[in-house]
Amino acid sequence: MTLSAAMQRFATRDADNPWFTQFRYMPAPGLGYERGIVRRDPSCIIQVAGLYYVWYTRGAHPCVPVGHERATDRLPAMPWDLTDVWYATSTDGHTWQEQGPAVERGPAGSYDERSIFTPDVLAHDGRYYLVYQVTAAPTWRSTPESIAIAWADSPTGPWTKSSAPVVEPDPSGEVDIRAHPEQATVKGSFDSLRVHDPALLYRDGRYWLYFKGEGIGHSNMDSKWGLAVADDPLGPYLKSPFNPITNSGHEVMVWNYAGGVGALLTRCGPEKNTIQFAADGINFQAQSAIISPPQAAGALRIDESRNTEPLAGLSWGLSHVATYSSHSVVQGHDPLGLLANDEPWDFIVRWERFNKRPAFD
Amino acid sequence: MTLSAAMQRFATRDADNPWFTQFRYMPAPGLGYERGIVRRDPSCIIQVAGLYYVWYTRGAHPCVPVGHERATDRLPAMPWDLTDVWYATSTDGHTWQEQGPAVERGPAGSYDERSIFTPDVLAHDGRYYLVYQVTAAPTWRSTPESIAIAWADSPTGPWTKSSAPVVEPDPSGEVDIRAHPEQATVKGSFDSLRVHDPALLYRDGRYWLYFKGEGIGHSNMDSKWGLAVADDPLGPYLKSPFNPITNSGHEVMVWNYAGGVGALLTRCGPEKNTIQFAADGINFQAQSAIISPPQAAGALRIDESRNTEPLAGLSWGLSHVATYSSHSVVQGHDPLGLLANDEPWDFIVRWERFNKRPAFD
Repeated sequence: MTLSAAMQRFATRDADNPWFTQFRYMPAPGLGYERGIVRRDPSCIIQVAGLYYVWYTRGAHPCVPVGHERATDRLPAMPWDLTDVWYATSTDGHTWQEQGPAVERGPAGSYDERSIFTPDVLAHDGRYYLVYQVTAAPTWRSTPESIAIAWADSPTGPWTKSSAPVVEPDPSGEVDIRAHPEQATVKGSFDSLRVHDPALLYRDGRYWLYFKGEGIGHSNMDSKWGLAVADDPLGPYLKSPFNPITNSGHEVMVWNYAGGVGALLTRCGPEKNTIQFAADGINFQAQSAIISPPQAAGALRIDESRNTEPLAGLSWGLSHVATYSSHSVVQGHDPLGLLANDEPWDFIVRWERFNKRPAFD
Repeated sequence: MTLSAAMQRFATRDADNPWFTQFRYMPAPGLGYERGIVRRDPSCIIQVAGLYYVWYTRGAHPCVPVGHERATDRLPAMPWDLTDVWYATSTDGHTWQEQGPAVERGPAGSYDERSIFTPDVLAHDGRYYLVYQVTAAPTWRSTPESIAIAWADSPTGPWTKSSAPVVEPDPSGEVDIRAHPEQATVKGSFDSLRVHDPALLYRDGRYWLYFKGEGIGHSNMDSKWGLAVADDPLGPYLKSPFNPITNSGHEVMVWNYAGGVGALLTRCGPEKNTIQFAADGINFQAQSAIISPPQAAGALRIDESRNTEPLAGLSWGLSHVATYSSHSVVQGHDPLGLLANDEPWDFIVRWERFNKRPAFD
């Protein structure tokens, strides 16, 4: 039998592939569209004493984003500017009650004075950890962004912030802070400008912090992921020498499975919209190609012992509709028709994995 | 330097990748939504004496599809049942004038008595060739489908049909004709039930007919592509021993480039929504991952000497909105909001390739 290159490479059929899924979307009442409020970047969801918890970026803005040139200390440049991390709870995973801030911007001069956003949560050994992005002021096209952490003994807080960021951009590259990142005078590495969208896993006795990198001299739509590992949840986190550990992917979504790590890579790069797996947490291989994935997804975290099939860590969750960037339209991400709203205020929807048999065609 | 598996495998960034593109959609007046008329599966578009020509599946049905169990000789089972191949012309590629039938169903007892559909066109050496799918009656869930060809000296016809199909399903497998293809008693090869969606290229002095295969015992949403080659455009066509030559892809869209073949693979399989290339026309490799690709696309055919960059053969064209199957919604394929039409009648839209810089995010 003579096998074509394609069949030698990857002969798995979607119908037989436990890594393949489809996604459907529905409103998430309590976190939905609201003029004047940005809600985006939901964390993973944890269940504590029967209640679901989620954290997310929240901004109460006097107007829609005005861009970096016109931004002030009250006018946001982008939807994720001048925001804090809030949290909400739910009894059924559908309807949510916004509870208030979890981690807020620090005072002038602190490392997180300008904005705190894109949280993820890890519950481990009775303690709770939030990892998130932070920026100092002022905000420009090429302002660096770092990752910080906070911890608490209860999901309702109070939260104790790290005294400094725990992951910083790589020091390579040079760009005028007011210029676009691609207008570099010296090109840097993939994460030389910003580290984004952290996700924190516990595996093999250590803390694995995955993040999205944005580089000086790189298009921000060519993001890749990095990894930093620590023995203690509060750090220090050491970046992997294998970084970048993906060639694709925008917001980070990872889960524990079978001793390794599953990953949902969306939007960017030659392997966008694939679900991947790395037995070692580092060397990922594509397992399936998916369509219309959730944007900036957070999924229900379940105990690893219950992760008995590849996508158990991706059963349902929340994601955002990024009205401002209009990427959602390009990605065909408006199944609810909600972009008809007359002002762009990002909001959160619920997604579910399903494997409905496609219609005969 | 320590490279992760991902970076060893595929480090090309979309922004630098000449195989990467985005797609946008707009109405194609003259071929748009019309109650009572199915228009789908547009061929590639050729320009002759300043006029653009396209061929497509057209049905004038008394009702929307009724399924195989209720179909009669007047009631269509599916949108592509009881159809013929029509053609339309345009001076600007936007507005089309429907001209009438090009190739119609044959009389009772002929190999194409039930339906003729999914055409593609090749203009070569002053002659025109249409390749398309054909079925005899009756139509059941597991009725075989074959590929036939017709030729003419003018794009306006008249067309001379081949006396028999030129590509037939592989004879392996066994299934009751009234059962679903997956309810096989003996599983067959990938193209043992039907050969679909032909596309015909001329290269290296021969005629390369690419088709989509559907197999007995296979899910129809796990389609792959096959290839059959002939020295004469009217055949005989010999199937490649490398079949299937893709592991993914639904409707076939291929073009000549740099002596090889470019391909747009959508909807199905582990490499769905990729653009691929095979220098030998057989062993394809993924070159980019794309989102929201056109469904059942036909593109403007240009002289190969003008194919100076990889996607010159994919500049603009027509595609369909498959309202009946609702796949278009799953794939996020309703940028025009046209699925709000109250009855499902498939129709044709125009697509264009563009490389707009994504919004900053």
